[in-house]
Amino acid sequence: MNRQHVVISLLAVLFLGACSNKEDHPSDKTTVVTKEASSSLADLTSYVNPHIGTKNMGHTYPGATVPFGMVQATPLTNYEALFEDGQYNPDTYRYCSGYQYEDSLIYGFCHTSFSGTGHSDLGDIVLMPTTGPQNLNPKTNGQETGFASSFKHENELASPGYYAVSLDDYNVDVQITTTERTAYHLYDFHSADTAHVLLDLVSNIYDYDEKNVWTFLRVENDTLVTGYRQTKGWARTRFVYFALSFSEPISSYGHEKYDKPNYNGFYRRFDENSNFPEMAGEDIRAWFDFDLNDKQLGVKVALSSVSTAGALLNLQTELPHWNFEETKAHAAELWNRELNKIQVEMVDEADLTTFYTALYHTMLSPIIYEDVDGKYRGLDQNIHESDGFTNYTIFSLWDTYRALHPLNNLIQPDRNNHMIHSMLAHYDQSAHDMLPIWSHYANENWCMIGYHATSVIADAMVKNVGDFDRQHALEACLNTSTTKYFDGIGEYMELGYVPEDVSGSSVSKTLEFAYNDWCIAQIAHALGDTHTETDYLRRAQSYVNCYDPKVGFMRPKLADGSWKTPFDPMDTHGQGFIEGNAWNYGLYVPHDIDNMIQMMGGKEQFASHLDSLFTMEIADEYIAQNEDITRDGIIGNYVHGNEPGHHIPYLYNWTGHPEKTQERVRMIMDSMYGPYEDGLCGNDDAGQMSAWYVLSALGFYDVAPGSPYYAVGSPLVKSARIQMSNGKYLNIKVINQAPDNVCIKALFWNDELITNWSLDHRELAQGGELSFEMSGKYSSQ
Amino acid sequence: MNRQHVVISLLAVLFLGACSNKEDHPSDKTTVVTKEASSSLADLTSYVNPHIGTKNMGHTYPGATVPFGMVQATPLTNYEALFEDGQYNPDTYRYCSGYQYEDSLIYGFCHTSFSGTGHSDLGDIVLMPTTGPQNLNPKTNGQETGFASSFKHENELASPGYYAVSLDDYNVDVQITTTERTAYHLYDFHSADTAHVLLDLVSNIYDYDEKNVWTFLRVENDTLVTGYRQTKGWARTRFVYFALSFSEPISSYGHEKYDKPNYNGFYRRFDENSNFPEMAGEDIRAWFDFDLNDKQLGVKVALSSVSTAGALLNLQTELPHWNFEETKAHAAELWNRELNKIQVEMVDEADLTTFYTALYHTMLSPIIYEDVDGKYRGLDQNIHESDGFTNYTIFSLWDTYRALHPLNNLIQPDRNNHMIHSMLAHYDQSAHDMLPIWSHYANENWCMIGYHATSVIADAMVKNVGDFDRQHALEACLNTSTTKYFDGIGEYMELGYVPEDVSGSSVSKTLEFAYNDWCIAQIAHALGDTHTETDYLRRAQSYVNCYDPKVGFMRPKLADGSWKTPFDPMDTHGQGFIEGNAWNYGLYVPHDIDNMIQMMGGKEQFASHLDSLFTMEIADEYIAQNEDITRDGIIGNYVHGNEPGHHIPYLYNWTGHPEKTQERVRMIMDSMYGPYEDGLCGNDDAGQMSAWYVLSALGFYDVAPGSPYYAVGSPLVKSARIQMSNGKYLNIKVINQAPDNVCIKALFWNDELITNWSLDHRELAQGGELSFEMSGKYSSQ
Repeated sequence: MNRQHVVISLLAVLFLGACSNKEDHPSDKTTVVTKEASSSLADLTSYVNPHIGTKNMGHTYPGATVPFGMVQATPLTNYEALFEDGQYNPDTYRYCSGYQYEDSLIYGFCHTSFSGTGHSDLGDIVLMPTTGPQNLNPKTNGQETGFASSFKHENELASPGYYAVSLDDYNVDVQITTTERTAYHLYDFHSADTAHVLLDLVSNIYDYDEKNVWTFLRVENDTLVTGYRQTKGWARTRFVYFALSFSEPISSYGHEKYDKPNYNGFYRRFDENSNFPEMAGEDIRAWFDFDLNDKQLGVKVALSSVSTAGALLNLQTELPHWNFEETKAHAAELWNRELNKIQVEMVDEADLTTFYTALYHTMLSPIIYEDVDGKYRGLDQNIHESDGFTNYTIFSLWDTYRALHPLNNLIQPDRNNHMIHSMLAHYDQSAHDMLPIWSHYANENWCMIGYHATSVIADAMVKNVGDFDRQHALEACLNTSTTKYFDGIGEYMELGYVPEDVSGSSVSKTLEFAYNDWCIAQIAHALGDTHTETDYLRRAQSYVNCYDPKVGFMRPKLADGSWKTPFDPMDTHGQGFIEGNAWNYGLYVPHDIDNMIQMMGGKEQFASHLDSLFTMEIADEYIAQNEDITRDGIIGNYVHGNEPGHHIPYLYNWTGHPEKTQERVRMIMDSMYGPYEDGLCGNDDAGQMSAWYVLSALGFYDVAPGSPYYAVGSPLVKSARIQMSNGKYLNIKVINQAPDNVCIKALFWNDELITNWSLDHRELAQGGELSFEMSGKYSSQ
Repeated sequence: MNRQHVVISLLAVLFLGACSNKEDHPSDKTTVVTKEASSSLADLTSYVNPHIGTKNMGHTYPGATVPFGMVQATPLTNYEALFEDGQYNPDTYRYCSGYQYEDSLIYGFCHTSFSGTGHSDLGDIVLMPTTGPQNLNPKTNGQETGFASSFKHENELASPGYYAVSLDDYNVDVQITTTERTAYHLYDFHSADTAHVLLDLVSNIYDYDEKNVWTFLRVENDTLVTGYRQTKGWARTRFVYFALSFSEPISSYGHEKYDKPNYNGFYRRFDENSNFPEMAGEDIRAWFDFDLNDKQLGVKVALSSVSTAGALLNLQTELPHWNFEETKAHAAELWNRELNKIQVEMVDEADLTTFYTALYHTMLSPIIYEDVDGKYRGLDQNIHESDGFTNYTIFSLWDTYRALHPLNNLIQPDRNNHMIHSMLAHYDQSAHDMLPIWSHYANENWCMIGYHATSVIADAMVKNVGDFDRQHALEACLNTSTTKYFDGIGEYMELGYVPEDVSGSSVSKTLEFAYNDWCIAQIAHALGDTHTETDYLRRAQSYVNCYDPKVGFMRPKLADGSWKTPFDPMDTHGQGFIEGNAWNYGLYVPHDIDNMIQMMGGKEQFASHLDSLFTMEIADEYIAQNEDITRDGIIGNYVHGNEPGHHIPYLYNWTGHPEKTQERVRMIMDSMYGPYEDGLCGNDDAGQMSAWYVLSALGFYDVAPGSPYYAVGSPLVKSARIQMSNGKYLNIKVINQAPDNVCIKALFWNDELITNWSLDHRELAQGGELSFEMSGKYSSQ
């Protein structure tokens, strides 16, 4: 990648809103280049490299999207892994976003993609421009012909809201930009004799069990096509409606069916395959031919969860013109508006790319999930209209409650409020009367554990974020946390723990239920409901039931009260945990750390456990158990590529060894993240990995969301200026910042010395200055 | 059936609105029983036997529905024929409505059914109450156990809006009544220990090619279930949403999946099969158990094409209570309101049953197809809202344009207006810019030929019916009739005929296109568009291109202008016709009869052709070609069981032999219809067969809809009083009516002698008296 890593003096450019700058520490080792912003916003998109995470298991995509946009227009580089005819393809997992950097073929451009998730779906409405003989079959392994084109990274450009690539086999240049609900493709066929656009409705990400349920297509006129696809993938019942507008008239079109059995529902009185304006079936691919006479072809694609009429409304509202450059510039401006919410200086210019790409990744989900008129498909599959909020979807809550939503409370409180409104709408529409667990596209996929929507709600409440109905939110939390058939909650309520013989991963579940119950207690506390608070504080102590003092670990217990044997605290399988083991996941009591430490032998013993965790040698067999984590994502037995340990480096603060927290978080930022295609050590997990980095780089982290207190780590930034939604700024200054100066010598909040390694969000949110004085050595204050 | 056939003196009961009665002819052979109506309406429902047509090929259903109601709640008596796993089952055709009178098992009660159609679909949302061990598999051939119950006709009662049956195997008494959009079931389990209700979403009528696309079910609370089923049957993309409300709480519930492949889209973290409130898959059957404590169980089922929210709205609006008797009485009243629009006296009391059942059958389709708030699913699969009309569906237009829609113009002009609005909405939503051909449930199934929506529009226009936009209607007709890829229209426009080598059934198509074009010319004429009128009158002459004077028959021509050889005018297959042959279908020029007769050799030769048609002996091989017509449905070579000949008996009027028309129509009424289960000689075809009977029994028939003139036949009624929507009455008196007195001695319209065997609808619609004087012998006036 020939990317310019230019460190700009952010404080020299004009920002939205004037304010005083008390910048009194001159830059030291920083390379300063003053760059005039083209608008009142600094152009921070140049520091974002969407390819970060596209190699190995980051599961990010390089395509075009706008912040929290409903449309993700991104290339697909593997067909077999995406479509495999009922057979589980182990390669499928690598293609959660449809793209791997090392691939050399592109099969088309889809319009929906998860960012960094640990499970796959989507990949809808694939467009592929081709030339030469029409071929509706993909060029998959074992086939000599078929659609697909080789491409080179040198001819590929990915930046926020814009993606471009040259398709070498067809000599077609592709550019794509987006608005919130539409994608705008611009194809240059270089005066080819033939110009086809293939609309592949067969292609799917995670095509397990013949994922397509139905596809439907109408040629409304010679430039407009509408339709929908319905799938039974990870989302059980998912509809994606679309409207597709061409800048030039279609000269001829048609489709082929790939159904099993082939569906022909009506009399064969037409040549259905050619120029017949209605097409439907389980699996169809359509083609559209154009006589371009050297012109470029624009293709606008709008999505909707409601109907093709909704998609058309989105198209007409968001993209009423054919000005690609204007659309591209608008997408960049949307990104700059968001990225400028945190303006940083870095010592190492490369860290700007890591930081702003991480910040970019935190704004790719949840996504807006409603049409421009506020209508959206709800969990009950009915069409609802958002009232007083914008509806969002893609809630990977087991991941994102940790750092993504707390980060949102800092820089996106309005959106976080809307996300909570959306979760409450989900609850209102739920046949289970439950808040979302892992929800996307009007479906609950039940992935992972706990009921962490409670954490997101509690964190917003203690941080005074949002206008959602607090009492209704408490009701939702209470109903969710008493759904007895969900993951052993009934037994948990009765016995104080989830028995392993009733529900697997029982320790993880018990620990997370306990934390979630503490969150509910915070909500009840805020509402003055002391009865509920007491009840849930009691439930929040359930973690103690999983601790076996004889072995010194959390471990799984059976329904009869006995410990499950044999027990291996290194093993991540069958030992009561999921995506972790007793060594790391067993430290998951974020809401009651002091007591946990006490229970586990006191501060020194606990610090020693942490030291061991970060330094121990572990056998290959245990490494292999983490399906998407390599040794690169592990420090000792600490696994940063999965989430259960994300709070662990900060636990040293509770042991009297904050310097060890400071060392570890800087080490993790340095070794687990980087401005490279493989710069993520595991799935980005819908922004959680990136949010950890953003917060940690600023110098603090929310160990227990639902508490207003951040644990202090060690900032990576040289300075930062965080724009709050109330118009105020949180300025962060880091004195003596340097790669080796990871220890904090002194920390001031508005000139007040902070000694307890804790910061109160409610104070930070008022604006002010946080000043770190760094040192190469730790000295207790 | 122990049905009371009581001839009532209709003129003695109180009717809606007082009016003068000039009844001056005393009853002669009629058995007169005066019966007080329970309301201001005569109870004519007692003359309706919904079992008529349920034996052999009538394809009617005995279940409960209200006039033009969206819900048809009716028993299913065969499972294999309905569900056959991708294999075509020749028995399927017999079960277009799901019921055959000779069967002895009931598999459940569905909520949608065609009435009398010649193709099948629907059969949705099947409920079956059972007792004893739960069994979710149907007791089909070769299986000893399974759900199903024997029943006896003596324990079965079918009347308009009400159906009751005893399920002997379960000792459960079932009663069902309906409103427009809901069914109300009442089950008496007779204190059985167990009470199950099975919801079978697998069962389908016409389950060709694994018809189910998706099913979705939610238990909203302990008395409410919602869901939908999506099929790819005859309708390519059809959604039926429902809401199901129980009068008693569900004690336990569950489902099983019968998918291939079985779909499990999410982690198996629950026992999905039992008490899990969300169920989905391609094929599922659910069960609901009840602790009834001797109580009866009420089940209300509402449908919607829009959403489960729409179904729930329909339920709450139309059936907010649990009063079964009130609902049943209301259904009967709705029927009486409609049936009373034609009050007749008959000589033979049995004819009252035939007549009123026929009248009943004319009000079973088209059906209302919108929710109570006016929302409905359109042809484009978007949700529309009817504006200024009520949306209808099920347009079997090749059948129903002939007599059903003309009858509607007489007694249901408002509904016919709404049906035309609905057809124009279909046009507006059509990707083909075409009016419906054979349309149902937001789909075009393209069945049969012609573009007869034009006839329905023209007939309404010349009869001054409706407030639809005439100019828009003309535009719709013009676009439809110039859709070159439809059924050879392109060649028809170019050559003046449909070439048989381009599109089969080419003579039928040419003749019907020509008639339809004449209809369009009438529309253009009414709008003063002489250019279009002239153009379409020219097109309307195209029928001459199919006549071969050398053989004296219409016959198929090839694209090169030569006749297709060999030619057999008796053969219904491959000879240019469909559901007919050259002998009968070749007389299809309803709009230009005089010229046709001249072309075919003049009046006497044509009358002789008609004589031969009605008297000729035909070989078994030709009988066998009519798949649903037996010798019972044929007179000579005249096939009343199919539609192309329905106008033929009236053609004698144009040959100077009206007495032969009079004899034939009375003969057909007598021999092709009767008050028995097999009282229909062929498919009722969405009411066309019955509408032919109703009009003919009144003494006239619309040979060429699009003209305001009726051809006079021979009335069967002794008297009739037809209530027009303008508040006026058309009174029909028949003097000397008797079975043998089929000839008309004299005919008066308001004392004016009619001699041309023609009546003008526009005059009849003003109200007045039509007086027939009958005789056993014909004497020219």
